[in-house]
Amino acid sequence: MPASYKAPLKDTLFVMKHLVGLERHANLPGFAEATPDLVQQILEEGAKFAEGVVHPTNQIGDQQGCTRHADGSVTTPDGFKEAYKALVEAGWMTLSADPQWGGQGLPAVVGTAFIEYLTSANQAFSMYPGLTHGAAAAIEVAGSEAQKAMYLPKMTSGEWTGTMNLTEPHCGTDLGLLRTRAVPNGDGSYAITGTKIFISSGEHDLADNIIHLVLAKTPDAPDTVKGISLFIVPKYLVNEDGSLGARNRLQCGSLEHKMGIRANATCVMNYDGATGWLVGEEMKGLKAMFIMMNIARLGVGQQGLAQSEIAYQNAVAYAKERIQGRALTGPANPAAKADSIMVHPDVRRMLLDAKAFNEGARALTLWGTMQADLVHKAATEEERQAADDIISLLTPVIKAHLTDKGYAHATNCQQVFGGHGYVEEWGMSQFVRDARINMIYEGANGVQAMDLVGRKLAQNGGRGMRAFLALVAGVIADAMQDERTVDMGAALEATVNELQGSTLWLMQNALANPNHAGAGATAYLDLMALVVFGMLWLQMAKAAHEELDAGAGDAGWYRAKLLTAKHYFERALPEAPALAAKIRAGSDTLMAMPVDAF
Amino acid sequence: MPASYKAPLKDTLFVMKHLVGLERHANLPGFAEATPDLVQQILEEGAKFAEGVVHPTNQIGDQQGCTRHADGSVTTPDGFKEAYKALVEAGWMTLSADPQWGGQGLPAVVGTAFIEYLTSANQAFSMYPGLTHGAAAAIEVAGSEAQKAMYLPKMTSGEWTGTMNLTEPHCGTDLGLLRTRAVPNGDGSYAITGTKIFISSGEHDLADNIIHLVLAKTPDAPDTVKGISLFIVPKYLVNEDGSLGARNRLQCGSLEHKMGIRANATCVMNYDGATGWLVGEEMKGLKAMFIMMNIARLGVGQQGLAQSEIAYQNAVAYAKERIQGRALTGPANPAAKADSIMVHPDVRRMLLDAKAFNEGARALTLWGTMQADLVHKAATEEERQAADDIISLLTPVIKAHLTDKGYAHATNCQQVFGGHGYVEEWGMSQFVRDARINMIYEGANGVQAMDLVGRKLAQNGGRGMRAFLALVAGVIADAMQDERTVDMGAALEATVNELQGSTLWLMQNALANPNHAGAGATAYLDLMALVVFGMLWLQMAKAAHEELDAGAGDAGWYRAKLLTAKHYFERALPEAPALAAKIRAGSDTLMAMPVDAF
Repeated sequence: MPASYKAPLKDTLFVMKHLVGLERHANLPGFAEATPDLVQQILEEGAKFAEGVVHPTNQIGDQQGCTRHADGSVTTPDGFKEAYKALVEAGWMTLSADPQWGGQGLPAVVGTAFIEYLTSANQAFSMYPGLTHGAAAAIEVAGSEAQKAMYLPKMTSGEWTGTMNLTEPHCGTDLGLLRTRAVPNGDGSYAITGTKIFISSGEHDLADNIIHLVLAKTPDAPDTVKGISLFIVPKYLVNEDGSLGARNRLQCGSLEHKMGIRANATCVMNYDGATGWLVGEEMKGLKAMFIMMNIARLGVGQQGLAQSEIAYQNAVAYAKERIQGRALTGPANPAAKADSIMVHPDVRRMLLDAKAFNEGARALTLWGTMQADLVHKAATEEERQAADDIISLLTPVIKAHLTDKGYAHATNCQQVFGGHGYVEEWGMSQFVRDARINMIYEGANGVQAMDLVGRKLAQNGGRGMRAFLALVAGVIADAMQDERTVDMGAALEATVNELQGSTLWLMQNALANPNHAGAGATAYLDLMALVVFGMLWLQMAKAAHEELDAGAGDAGWYRAKLLTAKHYFERALPEAPALAAKIRAGSDTLMAMPVDAF
Repeated sequence: MPASYKAPLKDTLFVMKHLVGLERHANLPGFAEATPDLVQQILEEGAKFAEGVVHPTNQIGDQQGCTRHADGSVTTPDGFKEAYKALVEAGWMTLSADPQWGGQGLPAVVGTAFIEYLTSANQAFSMYPGLTHGAAAAIEVAGSEAQKAMYLPKMTSGEWTGTMNLTEPHCGTDLGLLRTRAVPNGDGSYAITGTKIFISSGEHDLADNIIHLVLAKTPDAPDTVKGISLFIVPKYLVNEDGSLGARNRLQCGSLEHKMGIRANATCVMNYDGATGWLVGEEMKGLKAMFIMMNIARLGVGQQGLAQSEIAYQNAVAYAKERIQGRALTGPANPAAKADSIMVHPDVRRMLLDAKAFNEGARALTLWGTMQADLVHKAATEEERQAADDIISLLTPVIKAHLTDKGYAHATNCQQVFGGHGYVEEWGMSQFVRDARINMIYEGANGVQAMDLVGRKLAQNGGRGMRAFLALVAGVIADAMQDERTVDMGAALEATVNELQGSTLWLMQNALANPNHAGAGATAYLDLMALVVFGMLWLQMAKAAHEELDAGAGDAGWYRAKLLTAKHYFERALPEAPALAAKIRAGSDTLMAMPVDAF
């Protein structure tokens, strides 16, 4: 009865082959090594690891949660230490890391594909290495050579973990309000004092050291968002030779009791004159932090997918086994007293909605990671720029849409279980509860929508949006060449028209009244997501046709892919006009309501 | 920081005055007594009780849950006994009950209005009297005079509670599969043997006796849905004089660990030759049970509203106090370091979506209860029939739409809190977790959608649907008389057209292939809900205009009502074409997917 998990290896490899196309970039560092065979081998092993080593810790982690002791130390649930040790020893976190720090140097998309499996298997667990990855990325981009040499090797291997310390009790989205202070000690270090909250993986027993990245203000800095600096504040100071020195003056003050991801230690962190070192330039802390945030936002989008995927798998298994009622068209299995609930169109609707989302979201996270990788590695500035334009634009869409829908589909999959879905024993409740955080952290989804509409859309004179629309137009034009995809191409074109009409409406109205942009932001983000998903599904449909035309052995799998594409077009794209109507509704009614009348 | 609750008294009274119209039915028993003044007095006291006595038990109830002891007894969380005792002593459960059994004989809508407050205050708690109410209703309709006299007085007062025992481990929606047996003892009683699961309020320490209503099959009955009988199986046998006799052979075998409503004891009930008495005729058990179920379904719809309401209230309070960021149009409060997040259109969107839903749902549950009451009490058969046609049709809509949206809006209100919403301390997580069950129990929402499309729509040759459409047409025609409501009238007419087009499509297609009905059922139910809400919002807008025209003292309140109506029309009604498109998509793609390809 406990939930099970099987990594969707075949689908990952399908996306790798047809949408990511590693071989087209064989000239880039690490890409030539990433042959289809090697990637398959790695992901096969990664699947086994996620299924066999990590997934068994998921439910017990939720039940036990983390425990804070009187001395401020924190212990993780049963089995976490062993699973984490195995993760580090097998080098799973090093797949796509820089060889200079002990990484295997493979394309980022290989590591990302594995992370989906790890997250489905146990999201709370995956956040210990996940935060480390983000913290290491910030040091890599903004830190000094000495800092990189001191921290990155052990953070890359996972021997040390990392955290991101932004939020304070009175200060979340608006970081300008933060009060944590950094006072120079005179020896190049700073004394960090303040309270940070919601610090994921803030304290635990999995690693020898924890490298906290902390936002704080220096004494002469303006008390605004422009006065923020970033500091490395390790739990244990690190000696020149890399050995651990004194315990730093910081402590986990308490653990939050949360709706989900209970096995991740979400800490109140108290810094009491803790020793820290500036990362990069003073008062440029936000820029370095946003390097982490953008990577993290793609990762959070993927967490939305990961929860929907495992919820879907378990709902399918339950629906096949649950014998209840009869098909509307007459008994499907007359010999039995009832049919499986898979005979019901409404059950299939919930399952196919989730399946179509999951496969589209998988394509989006892997293809999106490829774009993010190209930003750093592509051979020409032009290619780097093009990739940056696209992924900057789509990052808020990936973060917000995938987490909103991931939660919605996990909820629907829980619904397939009836009353059994509400009982913790079956694990479906945990998927929903865990999925809920993804809509909130790394910038709540409403903030993502404003990032898209208020910033990304107009960035560089709208260059990103033009590039995106050109990309979609190319996919549609391609679809129009094949009579089997003409209808889908036309449907996507109609959706693009809704998006363009909505963009025009915003251009004509939001300049005069920015509240119109805020009022339509969430609907606009969802409308854009329909176009992105539609584009990816058209490409996947084309690829499935190609495989079938070429006589692929597992024809049933590709035919299912085509049906899933059709389902997405039938059931998701029709929402576009409603979203466009909500955008055009503007902000007048919303803003007319007096605060006291709510 | 813990959540707070204030009963929406003014809004209840507005609905009572303008949509329920008790005074129009002053000829019916109990209605003349229910003057506006009396109803207001009762609800003012009821509000105080829910806010001051019951709500303080909500969070602690969630934290502690119920405890089963080795002897099978169950204790409720701290404060529950005291709150329940106060509920019984004040007679809160007797408001709308029959005076013959100790009730106050007021119209059902008065009791229902109070139940909303009780449920917002603590849903898990409200289910102890709630299930009692359903069980008593079944005995009242189907029981013998002796049974009524024996059980109803104490169930009406709440001294004894009741339960509904339908589900078994292998048998939920499809009751024909049930295995619990009832063997005649020869003395008029039966020996009941079997295992029931998910029995809400199944065992507890709040009342002296628990009257279980149990579905079981008699020895010669067909092993199908047609062989089911209903039995009264009390925890303690009741002597002729009404005193308690021997402990019956039944026990709570275990408690479920659930996502929410943790303070309600959800029991596995083991009947081991327990003594039971047939209610009504043998093999007519389902009919009696469905009396309970239909009342219960309206109540569950109201639970969806109740969770959304308390979540909304707390989100508004938080949004007003949370100082973070600046208005898009420039600082709203330049003297402070940041503005309240109420300046953000996207925050207002989430709040107004919830507000528009809550007020529409309140109108629907109270107006719907009035129809249900008229089914029994109206003076003429014609009136009774008309009320029955409408409420039979709308019961699945109320149950499913209000619980789906109640959960969605509770989730959005949690979102307003950012990270604080995910921490249990603030209470928002509990509202979402509690709201989740409402979509599942008393018939999962997909089953409700099939009840609507597969049964209610065509019942009596479509008489209910015609009556409903005539009702809506009347409201639209009325709106067209006033230029202030012409636009809304036209928008609702367009929504009705989508509904009628979808109905026609189903008539033309689902007869040949019933799977088309199943595939479109959920979308159809939501489309119908848009029409119902639109109709009620038009009526409320008209009423608000009338109050303003008459120079109502609290003009701001009525203007807010008009803005909320406008918001619903701007942001909810545009979804109609998307729903219609999903209905027309039919079932071909859904059913074409092979089971093994999911």
